[in-house]
Amino acid sequence: MSDLSLQLMEKEPRLPRPHDGVTYNNVYVVHYNFSDVDYFKAVDELHTLVQDLESVGLYTELRAGYDQSLLIFVKAPKELLGNMVYKSRVKDWLYGISLNHPGGGKDTVVDGDYEAEDLLSMYHLVTWSKELGGAGITPKSGNWENVESVFPLHNVSANRKLLQYLSRKIFLKPDDLDKIRGLFGVKVAFYFAFLQTYIVFMFFPASTGFLAWMFLPHYSLVYAIITSLWCVVFLEYWKLQEVDLSLRWNVRGIASLKMTRPKFKYIKEIVDPTTGELKRYFPIWKHVIRHTLQIPFTITALVILGALITLVFTIEIFISEVYEGTLKTYLEYLPTVLLACVLPFISSRFEDVATMLTNYENHRTQDRHEMSHTQKIFVLNFITNYLPILLTALVYVPFGNTIVPHLEILLRSVLPGTIKFESDGEFAVDPSRLRNEVIALTVTGQISNLFEELIFPYLKHKAGRWYKDYRAERAHVATINTVIRDIPEEVKFLKRARNEAQLEPYNVQDDYSEMIIQFGYLALFSPVWPLVSVGFLVNNWIELRSDFLKICIDHRRPAPIRTDGIGPWIDSLGFLTWMGSISTAAVVYLFGNDSLGFLPGSDTWYALPLTIFVSEHIYLVLRYIVGFALQRMVCSEQMRKRRKKRYVQRKKYLEELESRFQQHLAVDEQERERRRSVLLNGHDLFWTRQREPMASVDVGMGLIKALRSANEAKKEA
Amino acid sequence: MSDLSLQLMEKEPRLPRPHDGVTYNNVYVVHYNFSDVDYFKAVDELHTLVQDLESVGLYTELRAGYDQSLLIFVKAPKELLGNMVYKSRVKDWLYGISLNHPGGGKDTVVDGDYEAEDLLSMYHLVTWSKELGGAGITPKSGNWENVESVFPLHNVSANRKLLQYLSRKIFLKPDDLDKIRGLFGVKVAFYFAFLQTYIVFMFFPASTGFLAWMFLPHYSLVYAIITSLWCVVFLEYWKLQEVDLSLRWNVRGIASLKMTRPKFKYIKEIVDPTTGELKRYFPIWKHVIRHTLQIPFTITALVILGALITLVFTIEIFISEVYEGTLKTYLEYLPTVLLACVLPFISSRFEDVATMLTNYENHRTQDRHEMSHTQKIFVLNFITNYLPILLTALVYVPFGNTIVPHLEILLRSVLPGTIKFESDGEFAVDPSRLRNEVIALTVTGQISNLFEELIFPYLKHKAGRWYKDYRAERAHVATINTVIRDIPEEVKFLKRARNEAQLEPYNVQDDYSEMIIQFGYLALFSPVWPLVSVGFLVNNWIELRSDFLKICIDHRRPAPIRTDGIGPWIDSLGFLTWMGSISTAAVVYLFGNDSLGFLPGSDTWYALPLTIFVSEHIYLVLRYIVGFALQRMVCSEQMRKRRKKRYVQRKKYLEELESRFQQHLAVDEQERERRRSVLLNGHDLFWTRQREPMASVDVGMGLIKALRSANEAKKEA
Repeated sequence: MSDLSLQLMEKEPRLPRPHDGVTYNNVYVVHYNFSDVDYFKAVDELHTLVQDLESVGLYTELRAGYDQSLLIFVKAPKELLGNMVYKSRVKDWLYGISLNHPGGGKDTVVDGDYEAEDLLSMYHLVTWSKELGGAGITPKSGNWENVESVFPLHNVSANRKLLQYLSRKIFLKPDDLDKIRGLFGVKVAFYFAFLQTYIVFMFFPASTGFLAWMFLPHYSLVYAIITSLWCVVFLEYWKLQEVDLSLRWNVRGIASLKMTRPKFKYIKEIVDPTTGELKRYFPIWKHVIRHTLQIPFTITALVILGALITLVFTIEIFISEVYEGTLKTYLEYLPTVLLACVLPFISSRFEDVATMLTNYENHRTQDRHEMSHTQKIFVLNFITNYLPILLTALVYVPFGNTIVPHLEILLRSVLPGTIKFESDGEFAVDPSRLRNEVIALTVTGQISNLFEELIFPYLKHKAGRWYKDYRAERAHVATINTVIRDIPEEVKFLKRARNEAQLEPYNVQDDYSEMIIQFGYLALFSPVWPLVSVGFLVNNWIELRSDFLKICIDHRRPAPIRTDGIGPWIDSLGFLTWMGSISTAAVVYLFGNDSLGFLPGSDTWYALPLTIFVSEHIYLVLRYIVGFALQRMVCSEQMRKRRKKRYVQRKKYLEELESRFQQHLAVDEQERERRRSVLLNGHDLFWTRQREPMASVDVGMGLIKALRSANEAKKEA
Repeated sequence: MSDLSLQLMEKEPRLPRPHDGVTYNNVYVVHYNFSDVDYFKAVDELHTLVQDLESVGLYTELRAGYDQSLLIFVKAPKELLGNMVYKSRVKDWLYGISLNHPGGGKDTVVDGDYEAEDLLSMYHLVTWSKELGGAGITPKSGNWENVESVFPLHNVSANRKLLQYLSRKIFLKPDDLDKIRGLFGVKVAFYFAFLQTYIVFMFFPASTGFLAWMFLPHYSLVYAIITSLWCVVFLEYWKLQEVDLSLRWNVRGIASLKMTRPKFKYIKEIVDPTTGELKRYFPIWKHVIRHTLQIPFTITALVILGALITLVFTIEIFISEVYEGTLKTYLEYLPTVLLACVLPFISSRFEDVATMLTNYENHRTQDRHEMSHTQKIFVLNFITNYLPILLTALVYVPFGNTIVPHLEILLRSVLPGTIKFESDGEFAVDPSRLRNEVIALTVTGQISNLFEELIFPYLKHKAGRWYKDYRAERAHVATINTVIRDIPEEVKFLKRARNEAQLEPYNVQDDYSEMIIQFGYLALFSPVWPLVSVGFLVNNWIELRSDFLKICIDHRRPAPIRTDGIGPWIDSLGFLTWMGSISTAAVVYLFGNDSLGFLPGSDTWYALPLTIFVSEHIYLVLRYIVGFALQRMVCSEQMRKRRKKRYVQRKKYLEELESRFQQHLAVDEQERERRRSVLLNGHDLFWTRQREPMASVDVGMGLIKALRSANEAKKEA
């Protein structure tokens, strides 16, 4: 124990423990790691760090972290935070995101309406650049390579309360989603809103799926059509729901307010000649050209992953259905082992490439960056998840009888005599394979997902922490918390803070990805096994709660970023629904009567592309109609509210304008006379002929009369 | 001559002729027809009419019209019109259409920036309902069944000047389009803007078409792909251009300002409980359900027109290529005569049904009404224009060899012995038929269009006028202008006004329709005859000028309505481009080697649906990419201007806010001390440990040092 712990302990030790009275709305933590730098560099950086934070007006308290790291607790005084929140609201108004000016002047200090609103301003205070009024602490980039992370603390009791509340509710109402937004911000709340809508909609395919399983034939066309229609309706409804929520949460059009990413590279800074704005210039055509790299990326991924899956698939079929040689019992496990070893490795290499590509694309805002990355990951997920099933459905079953014997012959010539073949030449495809594959992939997928997402990270984290404590106790390496002992009142609080600093950041895109992949199974392969949606419904009900739990215990509290929707996932959903119209048509066509009636070689098999073509276009027409009808019929509550508000404002304004008009009419009699006399003095005599009020009626009467009598005279003549 | 003409002539007769000094921006004409009502009814209506007009503050001058009609000239005093224009601008601002409040108060009087702006307000003064400050004169509806029309007068000299100017220019710039807007309003100007963009783009397919005709094989795949891509680029570019122009002309989002149509039927009037707004209620679900009638309408039209065209087509082929009996020379003309007689008749019946359906749909605004009607007419045009070619390409050529002999056999059994057949059983399709048909339909179509649109109406109108004058002179029926003689100074002016009252109203949708149908030929059948686009280019260059001339001489001056684009034609263009990806693929596949290699019966013909499928999906991907790239690369000038304007406003506002922030930092030293002392008195001791500025740095340094030395000690041990 050095002087240091004394310095930390110098105040009265027996008071209510500080972590009891801790506030969450105005505290942020900066996690500084000095293990990779020497003493002088570390001190230098630390000095700058604290100076930057304090120069904004933030208070700092420094404590030891795990290992060779420091935790700098940052707190904003009420005036600073309140003014930041106020300014953020003014900006929302300036950018047309909220309708009305919040009132007040430049010194106004307001309380955030909910914890996340305050925390968002805290996040801005810590991370925004100095020109924007922040401290400019950008973790792991620029000067702050050694700042591991910047995060708010979990509000444990609020988390627990909300989780209990959510577990008791069957359906979440918008108010409940508001609560999630209050804790974790709009971006996370949007995920739960999406999931909730999806769960509610899921009741429909779960019911029809159960009925189809009970009463309809296998691979039922009726069920396929109903499910496709459901997909379309769900997607179109969500699009409207998204707009409604974005209005409810005052985030519609928030993208226009997003800051430039710190990692955005620019060629030069140019001063806009008109506005004097300093702009970071990066040519757009370069950006677009870089974006096109996505095409070769997709093709490469498709080819390599496709080849791998096809290979494994071929070996699997070959061993299980054709091969009858030595070591069959062991060889049967080979493909699975092969795929299990190689696929994650190659897939994660592709994910690295995707990350590199996205960085190279050099997006101006974090949002766009994330979107582009998400899209690439979606492509990879699409291939690894659906390609095996598509191969079974569209290659193995229809062409198996043709291909497999060729394969046998090939293998015989390559490996003559060494292996024996089962039932020479009499191979027959196994149509139940498709169903088994779908069941295996979906059911086991859902269960393993739950484990991988929630339980595994928890155990891993626990084990890691235990190991660190163990190592620290055994003192192989000196870590700060072995050298300095905490003040007793702070022990519990600091333990929690250190723990949170070790957690992984939460990435909402992973959760979206999981749900969208699940939706894809429904959209693409619903008729294969209708019961699948019942399983999904149960899974998702649990998923919603477990995802919430996951954020609370497995992840650092996310910064309450704002977005106005689920972003590019809308496109992914649309794409899957579209693909579904092709895939289900093919599946129903090929397996429809469960007896493989149509196969290549038979005269009618050219009808398959025709079936697909027709199905796809029916889908497109349906999508148009559903979109059209829903847009007109589903009235967004928030839109209606906005419209009313606007109407009242406009009415008031227009009434003021109209009052003048009434007045104008009142004084008309004298005015009219005056103006007539002006006209009379002018050149334009045309307008003076019938200058008295209603004079033109008399003229008209005269004309009509004259004509009538002339006509009568004609008749008589 | 009665007293009446004296009354009209009572003022000094020798002054500059009034029609020389006539103004156009503040004059409107109401054309009242009393031929269908008795004297008392006519006088009564006339009385109400003039009273309504004058009650708004308008001046009226009544003169005789042609036949049994009256022309009521309406003029707004400067104060009234100027205030109406001002209020219109304020409304634009209130509804978010223009960015800034025009300034001024409720009594402000402004001059319109151009003639059409004044005229729009004149139009509102005459036609808007009384609650909105208009006279409520709605021609041919409600109480005003006998008001034939309400129209502004052509500004002949301005028309002439602009036409001469346009004829001299090769390309129209935005400034030139502004001039058209100044004369005829935004809606008409948008048509010319679209046509201009189309002409400029047309240079590309005209060049490539010429090259393809010179150097590429017939039905070239390369040319088909290039043209498809061109279609996509044109459409995506126009979408951006449309936004740019709508910002330039301050009409973006103008639909929100549109008034309820006078013919809109409502179930009841309800008072909105929140706002107190009186709303005309018509349930939306009813509206949507009525809209779905479009589906049976389309199907019926397709079946009936399709059957008709197929029938004529069959007879034509039969007679020209198979039949060799008596009267062949005469019979050959039969199908053409049949089609010429029946098609326009049936087609116009369908147009009547379309109008009925659209009325039944009961749209709230004129815009939506017009859009819905336009879409239905497009469907009819699509069928009558493209179906014959599609039948030739997709039925006659591929299946002709199979079908025609069957037809022969059928006919032999029905009409045994009476007719002879050419070359029994040895029928061969004529692949050049497709090309001839496209050439015939496009080239003659363009020429006859010009005649039908411009020259025929002009002659018809001239002849009609001559006949009326002739009849009036011969005095079979008494008409007003035979009974009353005009004042000499007004003769020329009144002749012109009466003439304009007799003209047809201008409907811009017809002109759009013509261009979109032309675009369709390019999109759907470009590889059939590449030279077609050269013809189109020449035609369109003339078309633009002749359309302008047409408005000036064949039509009443249109009310300068505002819209923010070309409306549903965007969808039509998109649909045609899409269909094009299917149609051109089929044409190139079937006719590609000019020798009809692939035909049904041959083993590979199932590849046709596959080809179409691939082509269509390539198109969809291309469309996505082009849209993505253009949206990012083509920067709208107007958008940039708006952004700048907004930026300046925001910057000013934010700078004011920031000044407080700087101030806050300046007083920080003392403030900080004060706040610290507040903190010290609180419970939260955590935040008081390092309360001095930069104190946490010292603590951090201590921690780092302690750890380093502990580690060194470990190592030494």
